[in-house]
Amino acid sequence: MSDLLWQKPGVQVDARIQHFLAGEDVVLDREFFLFDIRASQAHAEGLQRIGMLSADELDGITRELAALAQDFEQGRFVLDERFEDGHSAIEARLIERLGDAGRRIHTGRSRNDQILVATRLWLKDRLTRLGALCRESAEVALARAEAEASLPLPGYTHLQRAMVSSAGMWWSAWAEGFIDDAVRAAQTLAWVDANPLGSAAGYGINLPLDRDHTTQALGFGRLQVAAAYAQLSRGKFEMAAIEALGSALLDLRRLAWDLSLFTSAEFGFVSLPPQYTTGSSIMPNKRNPDVIELMRGTYSAAAAARTEIEQLLSLPSGYHRDLQFSKGAIFHAFGRGLAALELLPDLLRNLEWRVDRMHAAIEPSMFATDLAVDLARQGVPFRDAYRQAADPARWQQGDAADSLAARTSPGGAGALRLDTLRSRLAELS
Amino acid sequence: MSDLLWQKPGVQVDARIQHFLAGEDVVLDREFFLFDIRASQAHAEGLQRIGMLSADELDGITRELAALAQDFEQGRFVLDERFEDGHSAIEARLIERLGDAGRRIHTGRSRNDQILVATRLWLKDRLTRLGALCRESAEVALARAEAEASLPLPGYTHLQRAMVSSAGMWWSAWAEGFIDDAVRAAQTLAWVDANPLGSAAGYGINLPLDRDHTTQALGFGRLQVAAAYAQLSRGKFEMAAIEALGSALLDLRRLAWDLSLFTSAEFGFVSLPPQYTTGSSIMPNKRNPDVIELMRGTYSAAAAARTEIEQLLSLPSGYHRDLQFSKGAIFHAFGRGLAALELLPDLLRNLEWRVDRMHAAIEPSMFATDLAVDLARQGVPFRDAYRQAADPARWQQGDAADSLAARTSPGGAGALRLDTLRSRLAELS
Amino acid sequence: MSDLLWQKPGVQVDARIQHFLAGEDVVLDREFFLFDIRASQAHAEGLQRIGMLSADELDGITRELAALAQDFEQGRFVLDERFEDGHSAIEARLIERLGDAGRRIHTGRSRNDQILVATRLWLKDRLTRLGALCRESAEVALARAEAEASLPLPGYTHLQRAMVSSAGMWWSAWAEGFIDDAVRAAQTLAWVDANPLGSAAGYGINLPLDRDHTTQALGFGRLQVAAAYAQLSRGKFEMAAIEALGSALLDLRRLAWDLSLFTSAEFGFVSLPPQYTTGSSIMPNKRNPDVIELMRGTYSAAAAARTEIEQLLSLPSGYHRDLQFSKGAIFHAFGRGLAALELLPDLLRNLEWRVDRMHAAIEPSMFATDLAVDLARQGVPFRDAYRQAADPARWQQGDAADSLAARTSPGGAGALRLDTLRSRLAELS
Amino acid sequence: MSDLLWQKPGVQVDARIQHFLAGEDVVLDREFFLFDIRASQAHAEGLQRIGMLSADELDGITRELAALAQDFEQGRFVLDERFEDGHSAIEARLIERLGDAGRRIHTGRSRNDQILVATRLWLKDRLTRLGALCRESAEVALARAEAEASLPLPGYTHLQRAMVSSAGMWWSAWAEGFIDDAVRAAQTLAWVDANPLGSAAGYGINLPLDRDHTTQALGFGRLQVAAAYAQLSRGKFEMAAIEALGSALLDLRRLAWDLSLFTSAEFGFVSLPPQYTTGSSIMPNKRNPDVIELMRGTYSAAAAARTEIEQLLSLPSGYHRDLQFSKGAIFHAFGRGLAALELLPDLLRNLEWRVDRMHAAIEPSMFATDLAVDLARQGVPFRDAYRQAADPARWQQGDAADSLAARTSPGGAGALRLDTLRSRLAELS
Repeated sequence: MSDLLWQKPGVQVDARIQHFLAGEDVVLDREFFLFDIRASQAHAEGLQRIGMLSADELDGITRELAALAQDFEQGRFVLDERFEDGHSAIEARLIERLGDAGRRIHTGRSRNDQILVATRLWLKDRLTRLGALCRESAEVALARAEAEASLPLPGYTHLQRAMVSSAGMWWSAWAEGFIDDAVRAAQTLAWVDANPLGSAAGYGINLPLDRDHTTQALGFGRLQVAAAYAQLSRGKFEMAAIEALGSALLDLRRLAWDLSLFTSAEFGFVSLPPQYTTGSSIMPNKRNPDVIELMRGTYSAAAAARTEIEQLLSLPSGYHRDLQFSKGAIFHAFGRGLAALELLPDLLRNLEWRVDRMHAAIEPSMFATDLAVDLARQGVPFRDAYRQAADPARWQQGDAADSLAARTSPGGAGALRLDTLRSRLAELS
Repeated sequence: MSDLLWQKPGVQVDARIQHFLAGEDVVLDREFFLFDIRASQAHAEGLQRIGMLSADELDGITRELAALAQDFEQGRFVLDERFEDGHSAIEARLIERLGDAGRRIHTGRSRNDQILVATRLWLKDRLTRLGALCRESAEVALARAEAEASLPLPGYTHLQRAMVSSAGMWWSAWAEGFIDDAVRAAQTLAWVDANPLGSAAGYGINLPLDRDHTTQALGFGRLQVAAAYAQLSRGKFEMAAIEALGSALLDLRRLAWDLSLFTSAEFGFVSLPPQYTTGSSIMPNKRNPDVIELMRGTYSAAAAARTEIEQLLSLPSGYHRDLQFSKGAIFHAFGRGLAALELLPDLLRNLEWRVDRMHAAIEPSMFATDLAVDLARQGVPFRDAYRQAADPARWQQGDAADSLAARTSPGGAGALRLDTLRSRLAELS
Repeated sequence: MSDLLWQKPGVQVDARIQHFLAGEDVVLDREFFLFDIRASQAHAEGLQRIGMLSADELDGITRELAALAQDFEQGRFVLDERFEDGHSAIEARLIERLGDAGRRIHTGRSRNDQILVATRLWLKDRLTRLGALCRESAEVALARAEAEASLPLPGYTHLQRAMVSSAGMWWSAWAEGFIDDAVRAAQTLAWVDANPLGSAAGYGINLPLDRDHTTQALGFGRLQVAAAYAQLSRGKFEMAAIEALGSALLDLRRLAWDLSLFTSAEFGFVSLPPQYTTGSSIMPNKRNPDVIELMRGTYSAAAAARTEIEQLLSLPSGYHRDLQFSKGAIFHAFGRGLAALELLPDLLRNLEWRVDRMHAAIEPSMFATDLAVDLARQGVPFRDAYRQAADPARWQQGDAADSLAARTSPGGAGALRLDTLRSRLAELS
Repeated sequence: MSDLLWQKPGVQVDARIQHFLAGEDVVLDREFFLFDIRASQAHAEGLQRIGMLSADELDGITRELAALAQDFEQGRFVLDERFEDGHSAIEARLIERLGDAGRRIHTGRSRNDQILVATRLWLKDRLTRLGALCRESAEVALARAEAEASLPLPGYTHLQRAMVSSAGMWWSAWAEGFIDDAVRAAQTLAWVDANPLGSAAGYGINLPLDRDHTTQALGFGRLQVAAAYAQLSRGKFEMAAIEALGSALLDLRRLAWDLSLFTSAEFGFVSLPPQYTTGSSIMPNKRNPDVIELMRGTYSAAAAARTEIEQLLSLPSGYHRDLQFSKGAIFHAFGRGLAALELLPDLLRNLEWRVDRMHAAIEPSMFATDLAVDLARQGVPFRDAYRQAADPARWQQGDAADSLAARTSPGGAGALRLDTLRSRLAELS
């Protein structure tokens, strides 16, 4: 590792301890690096606006930050263990290339607000992607809901056969679910959209930093005003972002559960294109729906990451090094979570119903509720109608299509109200 | 327990099993009971509008539901183990009083959507209260931030003395924190504000239920459209509500941590009115800040409740009895969480700074950062200024008030921008 | 509430704050009350042995503690909001009945070690019960494994049909699982079996308390030596107990999942006696396996309780009031967890296989692995044999009984080694 | 990636899906690789013992596995994305070097039991290391407890000054804590010490595998008997291991909390060697105890990993791909957890008391409990003595050494019983 920024003369460094302190910081900082460079640029502009950098110095910094970003993207600059972290690497590069101008970049800034602003930009980027994927999944689901509105599908409660349902009802449920998840992603994005840059170490600085400029230059919706609150929002905002991600991944988990059952031999309602399945190392006969199972398991990464941060947040105010562990957590959650959601729209497009199996699973008992309500419509008090319809002797195979068409309660198969969902989705785009 | 609604002839009931099945359901349902009655009223109105109840029947139901609500509130009706759950109790009462009209109340409704709508109304009520308490806490903090804007307070990072801070900076941090929490409560309230009533068992019903009426009558912001999604939102919406609560409670935890330190003999920056403290059974000398510690510990209830629901949500779509366990969880979280937040505004009003102790803890090293920036302002590149200011020989006791006044970065002590915070708060009311 | 033990003259009490402080403490203490009385008796004996109580005083205390226990058990004494907590109630009663002897009971004791020892005894009791229930479940599973050793059952991986399995293999898996859980309960019991009484407020006391006597009198396996560690073990030991419970409940969750699938119409391998099922309020046709679903959901209570305590344990050493919240958590976990496990042995005894459905689900592909291994036995390298056996043209329906008999790898259907499991179980009794 | 073992002709592979499926598997498998090789060797020996490999074939495999292990350790063989996973890599290498003998290595084995056995060996290794580190930490604490038995240290409850304590009492608390943690590591090691190899895909195999040989050759304490239970133990055993780790890390968290306070300027009881501290990028005056804070934060990794696995375990029996996510979790927990514990013994050895600051913090009120007990010893009923001693007029500065010497309750400063702790520790080695 190069010299530490804060190294004091005469203090010996213990290699084992330094290794423990460094952890994976510099490797993790690769995720943030371009955002850190962007925020450094805005910070430099702000410094120039209050006279702490000359126009020439700013030009130099602007040029070198752009070059560094390009070098990083093209692999000519590798962020590795030579550096304590990404922040130090940027400063070191500017000093190497620009001398005193580089030595001025950290004026009025702490690594505390530097990591905050890079994390914030990263989170905004990921929440934007989360919202887009939820919207795309909802769109596929809406399209299939419309196309398959009247395709009968057995409906279950408690995994027991309950009533006739339809592919349309099934798809519209997921559509509304992912619309809600997209709304939440948007709400969360708005909530975290506050600029912490300029809060320094949590106590402000004796310079009239132009925080309004950095807020605008970095595209933030508002200033995170209180310097000490910027520190208190570390972890708090990350958790909110993971929770929004988790909301979508919980829906994905339940959707994957449905597909896991539906692709079993016993249910057999769905077939998956072969590329979604894998084989066994010992059993030559197997085609396993691993993609679905990994999608189902993906929520665990969000849950783990949330726990990791939650466990850190029992602290007095002010920065504490414990908080550093929140970095890896968000990468884990969003890395794995978005990877699963990326595959979802195509999976939804590609899955095929096995109509014969769905049809065969619809049995007379599943019309008993329709019967009870029919009796009620004829004037029998529902509780009595229920008792009459509970007699298996009265159950008979009905016509599934008729049953669905009669399900006219809004949101039922006979009145799906997809337009309402489509409008909500359109408002989000 | 009275007869079970769904009891079938000839099936023996095992007392131990029934006891296990019942759990605490009926006791927990007390929390929901008035909401369940309200939703039953709206459901009855809807049934009358589609001709499934006569005007007379609706009148009778309206009267008896009102009477039941009053009896319940005044303790004349006790919801206890005589009933399987609150839902059955309402139906049983209506049947007892009204005969056939009572037997019609459950037409087109399942306990599945009945519990969903009662829970939803309860959550909205609690989120409203959460928002109000966050706003009130923020108001107190803002008022004290203004009044104590320039009162010096030692600032820490890593629990090590860092820079001079101020009571104003401390208060404004909490103000902004609780404003964010209030925003989140409002966002979450809007997100869950969807009417599930009329989704029946998750598959709709063969009646044109007037769900738009119930949506309006119950004050919901929108219809929860897809019948199957109403079931999928069970637990999902509860978790979001708990997460919004948790956001406020995490801030409370960190605030309580500050106060726990500040009321120690070693820090000694704050004194609490004696009613916030308790004694020891063995140590005659003790006055313990138990209120603060219980506030700090309260987040654990939200965390526990969230975990309890999260653990249930690995299920295929459709209702499963596991989901019943989500009821107790939300009572636990909001019961304990709101109780702690109820005490917060007064606590914030009542805590007193010990100015002498705060003053005494401000030492020369805490002016070193000011010095480094002053040097930078004079033209020394910051990284060099930092090295110069790192020499303890250059540290000298400064004037805390001057240091604070010079902290002109927005959000710093010299430019708190309380108006910005006040505007955000005003928008919420 | 009666006067507080530690009440100081002139300090006003605020009712809202007292209510918040009290929480549910005194109600929760009902669970501990008999253990608290037992420990108080041992403490009194210890005091008498070092001369801090006379023989007469001890006699009086012994008599009154016994009377209090009896009154409590028979409902003549109710522990309610009149008391701050159970500890105060015991002391108040002794003072009321015995005067000065009662005023001596708390000599050398703090509520801190008093709650610790009561909790410890309670945990030991519950862990003992946990172990017994795991052993009983394992016994049932072993008996059925033996009886149904060669009953073919389809075997799945990824919920896809894999190989022929047997009821014997299925039962023996649960047998070994619950044996492991019983071992863990026993390990945990031994681990927590340490006497904290006599550690006072965490700093010992200036009296030569006879802690060896109380250790022996209360049946503890060892002394918890360090006074300050007694406090540090608060929560730590509770978590270990919940984790041991959780291990059994996770197995229960997976067992319940199997049964949830097996009782579906699609799998249909198991039928449950009707008393394990319930009906629907709206669907007359439903019989739902709610008992199984609640068993599956029960783990969530253990998870929640563990989270609740885990969240509290980010504290410096010494007692903090936050820790009080650990009480309700263990009641929640063990209350619900043991209730579910109590029903398990009978459920296992009572479930019936539907042999025809099991038979019908065994298809030719499920013999492909047997075939590959047969080829390997004939000298074809396994990887080649696997490829040959992957050709569906070579799959043919085999005889399930033959396939099972040939499965002679230890633990396979042809060599279940139930004796080994039976021996491990016997060692535990 | 090379050809997939289970690849079927004509099935197209989708690169994005394959990438999602592969995840980080092969990289994570580096951790397991040497254990996988060891287990492969035992498996090959077993195959030879039942005639499925010739003596020559076994010799070849033995030689090539040793060579592969050496190549891997010396970096000549890199496990990377060329392979689907570590298991495939081993088989591919043997086939490449040995032809048919390599094609026989997977006879009677599935990747399911292959990963189980490698994981099990890895867990045993890490639990052994965990135990050793806990024992070493306990030894240091015991040695310092003895050396500093009568060094006065202020004792706190609720972070309020309570009674005089001692360094001896403080150290002995941590000693007993880490002894308990070492016991738990040993218990857990014994609990997971069961051989899953030979359970194949969870249904055994039609070969009389010599599982007793592999059990012995791999050093397992027992056979994991039931083939289907081997699969059910996936995740269950990992969680138990993480929980044992967590127990130690929770103690570390509380110890780090003490040190975080004690190294603050306000408490000031401890000074750390400079190599345990770092500086700030902006505040030239800072020396921050980052090592302590990272130790405190390390528990979060164990909590996260446990959550990650816990979330996966809501599944029917049999293998499911979701379980694959348990791999990364254990590396995260043990990687970070053991790294923190590795530094602990030296930290404990190196921390220095600041005796003057400790002395100065002992004030008259801290002798009030001693006084109350003294009064009780003179015959005043304790509850009356308590009231008398609650009068601040009676508090006077005592002699801390006298107070400690009089604390003769076992485990108190006057009777630390370190021998008891030393004996327990000795039994563990």
